[in-house]
Amino acid sequence: MAMETQEPGDGRTDSIGPWAARAADPQYRAAVLDLLGALAYGELSAFERLAEDAKFAPGITEKAALARMASAEYQHFQLLHDRLAEVGADPVAVMEPFVEPLENFHRMTAPSDWLEGLVKAYVGDAIATDFYREVAVRLDDDTRELVLRVMSDTGHAGFAVERVRQAIAEDPRVGGRLALWGRRLMGEALSQAQRVVAERDALSNLLVGGAQVRGFDLVEVGKMFNRITETHTKRMAALGLAS
Amino acid sequence: MAMETQEPGDGRTDSIGPWAARAADPQYRAAVLDLLGALAYGELSAFERLAEDAKFAPGITEKAALARMASAEYQHFQLLHDRLAEVGADPVAVMEPFVEPLENFHRMTAPSDWLEGLVKAYVGDAIATDFYREVAVRLDDDTRELVLRVMSDTGHAGFAVERVRQAIAEDPRVGGRLALWGRRLMGEALSQAQRVVAERDALSNLLVGGAQVRGFDLVEVGKMFNRITETHTKRMAALGLAS
Repeated sequence: MAMETQEPGDGRTDSIGPWAARAADPQYRAAVLDLLGALAYGELSAFERLAEDAKFAPGITEKAALARMASAEYQHFQLLHDRLAEVGADPVAVMEPFVEPLENFHRMTAPSDWLEGLVKAYVGDAIATDFYREVAVRLDDDTRELVLRVMSDTGHAGFAVERVRQAIAEDPRVGGRLALWGRRLMGEALSQAQRVVAERDALSNLLVGGAQVRGFDLVEVGKMFNRITETHTKRMAALGLAS
Repeated sequence: MAMETQEPGDGRTDSIGPWAARAADPQYRAAVLDLLGALAYGELSAFERLAEDAKFAPGITEKAALARMASAEYQHFQLLHDRLAEVGADPVAVMEPFVEPLENFHRMTAPSDWLEGLVKAYVGDAIATDFYREVAVRLDDDTRELVLRVMSDTGHAGFAVERVRQAIAEDPRVGGRLALWGRRLMGEALSQAQRVVAERDALSNLLVGGAQVRGFDLVEVGKMFNRITETHTKRMAALGLAS
């Protein structure tokens, strides 16, 4: 895969103004509703899968750690849901188009044991943070503030790193298996994301070019995915996993 | 089953003093640690099962409602866990004796569909509240405040009532099936509670007689279970289910 050296956005950007001013543009409004709907259902399905993966936890401490992450995802869902209602959208209708891609992703990446669950929790949390950072720079002030608030509360998955490293130290073959698993997680995430991009024009335009860019730019989408993939690769290496 | 007309405690009682004063009695301390351990693991396992039952939800709204309840249970777990650590106990060790009875309960009462899941969420929430109310009157001021705080935040299951009533109205046979289910839930809860009572003397003494009563009093335990059963019976009737 071609390497893309451009740095991901750092969350700072020139303001494009408050929501109230931008939302007058129906295409911008549609794009932000799509984004919030995708994020909201993403959080709800992440809650559900983390909670389900808690069944693999080897002890109470580990079960509680996954439950804490799941609970944080639910809080994010609530914030995003309430914001959708606040701007006059029907949260359920807005989330609907993203149910199938997200359920597909989780169905294709159901962990078969505790370590796969840990890697998925860690990788999923990290990819979500990268995506939030990418998208935040293209948003109006109010939506950006919400997205950054949800993002600032992630990172609960740090506990996974030590456990995974320890498991690899005890049995190096585990590393090979989990490296394959990490690749599969990223592959399935990209596959479902490509599908969403293909089907949701307004959202795609927002993701790649900000509200100003009307034209659908596949090259820009590819660059964003490359940046996220590159960060994922570095992260897997830090975890002791070749990706 | 013999009816017991005594009213459940209303949460008001003469103070037996603060935790710091009472905890000098090793039997009282052991009993409260048992109680907090049982409640904490109860909340963690309730979180896990509610989250798992969310898979039956017929739509996003219902899934989100179960996720909200599960998330509230996790918050309760966190409060109880932190309190155990605060008084110098090892939370995991204190929870350990209650893992098997609670896992048994959930294994024996795994819902087979959405309506059974709803009734379980509603009944479980309500029985927990009844139990908190019973036990609060026997506690030192600090522990009582914690228990009442956890209790005040329950009641998320109210949304279940309307759904269950509607399902029965649409198909009265559903009522018969769910009435049986309600009986089974209460039966399994009592069965596991009896086992805990038999194995945990200090906790049992606290539950039935307060710190003053040293003797194990099976009659008092039976009366408490009868009060909770009676309240359950009234609740099922209000839901349109003969129990």
